[in-house]
Amino acid sequence: MSNDKLPTRNENFSEWYNQVVQRAEMADYAPVRGCMVVRPYGWALWENIQSALDTRFKATGHVNAAFPLFIPKSFIEKEKEHVEGFSPELAVVTIGGGEVLEEPLIVRPTSETIIGHMYAKWIKSYRDLPVLINQWGNVVRWEMRTRLFLRTLEFYWQEGHTAHATADEAETETLQMLDIYYDFAVNEAAVPVIRGRKSDKEKFAGAVRSYTIEGMMGDRRALQSGTSHNLGQNFARAFDIQYLDVNNELQYAWTTSWGLSTRFIGAIIMTHGDDQGLILPPRLAPIQVVIVPIWKSEDERQAVLSMAQEVRQRLIQGGVRAQLDDADQKTPGWKFNYWELKGVPVRIEIGPRDLAQKSVVLARRDVTGKSGKSFGVNLETLVPQVIELLDDIQNGLLQRATEFRDAHIVDVSSYAELKEVIQAGDWARGWWAGTTEEELQVKDETGATIRCFPFDQPESRGACLFSGRPAREVALFARAY
Amino acid sequence: MSNDKLPTRNENFSEWYNQVVQRAEMADYAPVRGCMVVRPYGWALWENIQSALDTRFKATGHVNAAFPLFIPKSFIEKEKEHVEGFSPELAVVTIGGGEVLEEPLIVRPTSETIIGHMYAKWIKSYRDLPVLINQWGNVVRWEMRTRLFLRTLEFYWQEGHTAHATADEAETETLQMLDIYYDFAVNEAAVPVIRGRKSDKEKFAGAVRSYTIEGMMGDRRALQSGTSHNLGQNFARAFDIQYLDVNNELQYAWTTSWGLSTRFIGAIIMTHGDDQGLILPPRLAPIQVVIVPIWKSEDERQAVLSMAQEVRQRLIQGGVRAQLDDADQKTPGWKFNYWELKGVPVRIEIGPRDLAQKSVVLARRDVTGKSGKSFGVNLETLVPQVIELLDDIQNGLLQRATEFRDAHIVDVSSYAELKEVIQAGDWARGWWAGTTEEELQVKDETGATIRCFPFDQPESRGACLFSGRPAREVALFARAY
Repeated sequence: MSNDKLPTRNENFSEWYNQVVQRAEMADYAPVRGCMVVRPYGWALWENIQSALDTRFKATGHVNAAFPLFIPKSFIEKEKEHVEGFSPELAVVTIGGGEVLEEPLIVRPTSETIIGHMYAKWIKSYRDLPVLINQWGNVVRWEMRTRLFLRTLEFYWQEGHTAHATADEAETETLQMLDIYYDFAVNEAAVPVIRGRKSDKEKFAGAVRSYTIEGMMGDRRALQSGTSHNLGQNFARAFDIQYLDVNNELQYAWTTSWGLSTRFIGAIIMTHGDDQGLILPPRLAPIQVVIVPIWKSEDERQAVLSMAQEVRQRLIQGGVRAQLDDADQKTPGWKFNYWELKGVPVRIEIGPRDLAQKSVVLARRDVTGKSGKSFGVNLETLVPQVIELLDDIQNGLLQRATEFRDAHIVDVSSYAELKEVIQAGDWARGWWAGTTEEELQVKDETGATIRCFPFDQPESRGACLFSGRPAREVALFARAY
Repeated sequence: MSNDKLPTRNENFSEWYNQVVQRAEMADYAPVRGCMVVRPYGWALWENIQSALDTRFKATGHVNAAFPLFIPKSFIEKEKEHVEGFSPELAVVTIGGGEVLEEPLIVRPTSETIIGHMYAKWIKSYRDLPVLINQWGNVVRWEMRTRLFLRTLEFYWQEGHTAHATADEAETETLQMLDIYYDFAVNEAAVPVIRGRKSDKEKFAGAVRSYTIEGMMGDRRALQSGTSHNLGQNFARAFDIQYLDVNNELQYAWTTSWGLSTRFIGAIIMTHGDDQGLILPPRLAPIQVVIVPIWKSEDERQAVLSMAQEVRQRLIQGGVRAQLDDADQKTPGWKFNYWELKGVPVRIEIGPRDLAQKSVVLARRDVTGKSGKSFGVNLETLVPQVIELLDDIQNGLLQRATEFRDAHIVDVSSYAELKEVIQAGDWARGWWAGTTEEELQVKDETGATIRCFPFDQPESRGACLFSGRPAREVALFARAY
């Protein structure tokens, strides 16, 4: 770890982010432009995200499978909007085993096409429906401007792909999966995302309707953190996914897709982090508690380490992910900074004075300085107290982020007001009945896009902030990652 | 599921395998030549394999991470033997984002090179060692003759990559990981593999020493089921992985790599399967128990289903992976065949006659016919009885496979005997002190290769079966997948 101080978030949020990601050993740049290495600490966080989501997917009847990395070029071209959306971003394999390939292969940017092809083969009758499959894997999109976790050539994600007998069922599935993302984001990651529908301009290439969870980052930019798409019969028609219904008539299936990626790690970092580094939500943190022993003499060292080991053992038996930093070469102060940078929610300090009293000091990561410390915590009540503290921190992070978000969403009723709010870096909420062209004009002139039409809508109607036309919905505008 | 009978294993083992894999819905062919789709049932088995291995990796101090899919072409060329080994098998990305790339990118066939590059960046001092990282992911090798699970263009695996301060430590790690594979294969998959060292001809491209676990399949061919490589300082020199030792002198690190892939699913299928289809080892089976209710009238249906649901509930609460097949459209006989094909270890039958007695029928998959059935099993003792039966089946599968293996390894003391044994389809074990050229001659003339020099060696010495030269080791020869 470098000893230079991090830039503060106010000074340079972007540079703060880059340095935190690398210095906390979450990820590193790979030798190929725009690709990343997710380091063990970052991957452990992703494994906890995977586990929280996978449990929810399986509880709602989904199963996992694995579809190929390579897609024949002709497949991508079958769905008109899909090919337009993804063509500029493709990585193409043209040589295999030393020979030029007859048909080039696309490294999957997403798997609707190849999965659609397989579903057409597997689905024959209404009895085969619904098909509810998810895949954990890697995809590649040839992005020009990349940033670790937020936008990389290769990234990791899950993509769910389902097929249904009716339009209603497909819509219900699309919304159910968005709710699962929401529940995960809010209750596991303490990221208070907003659910909503994407505008036509922003929806997935080939979808009928796209839904999103949008998070407000620490610099108030929006981050699209997960999406769920109702694909209607678009891909079923392109790939011939047909089934015999109860009346023995051939019908096209209705399909959905939904995904959440390693980008969400960026959401966690930028929602909770402070000028000391990461703050990880306890439910997902790879290490929930770090124990830092403090000693001067060799005698003290032995006694302190032995108590520290006992504390670690008790915590692990209590189901807490605890780690003991017993390294000889580093000072306690260095260790405090290091584990703060890494965002471990709770630090336990044990020094010679604590030995006699059989007590320890608890320090919470989200409240720095003395006010975040509890002194003289008795060993006998430590484990329940730590568990309660972890809950407190989890709830506190969510509350803080929610208040921050709500303080920075401003209602606007005119384009002039919208410009002012966006210029100030906040989000603007206002009635919208505009066209895609008008939305593009707003983007060109302000840098803001419609992040979503939030599910949470006023009961009244209003006038479009841009055109004055009668509007049925409010939209959220923001500059976004 | 097709209603045609499977070919028997004696008639055509290869065709039996292909049909079982597809009809049991383990995997399917993808539209790209040589690529596979791992279907949910196959992937659920892989998830159980992953979990059994991952637990063992983490218990021995390893952590997971993710390295990029794409490797600069120049990297592959840095280690001389490595590039010779892998060059013919590479898939090459030459176009990205619509532009021809300046340096083509290789889709990783394995990750020694890119991980070596990152280790060179991360490792500075002896304090940074050992580095113990594993990765779960996909790799691509452009194979010409492919078979589902056994050899596909893209496959799934884990690859461990470690770096150490001494040669001894690296060798200890290499052997430790082989032992973990062995323990997994024998105790989770009931596949009685043989541990040994690869010959120079068969070792990994770039390794100093390669170790392997070799399994004997139902057709007596050998399947290399997992490998662990001591890479010496070969990759450290090629990628400049250097560290400052305790005396502040620069040293090259010693590295290892080890991998086990979805090929192991093929090992499970070909070790345990019979003419009715799959037999999955209970510890890894996605479904351990299937409940098939039997009824004629609607009254019976309701009562039988209600008892079946109770049975399912009790089993799940007892930690058994149980599923109820309550489909209306299929007969019990059809279901029996279907779940036998899928290799579910235990079937529970519940019919109207069982209701009154509150009992069920247990049928074990590994013993077909009446002798594999227990009648009148009381509901109150069902769960412990099922758990015991699953253990019995697990042990029985291992014992059967071990006896089969041992009955088909024949000691030979001359090349003529070796030819005879290989011709008969068995494995030959004999003293070997031959050269790589002599090994190649054996391969050309018999189709057999040295699978390994097994760890289990006679205490005496002998004369090489081929040349008569004094030999220190016996080798195992077999035709292999």
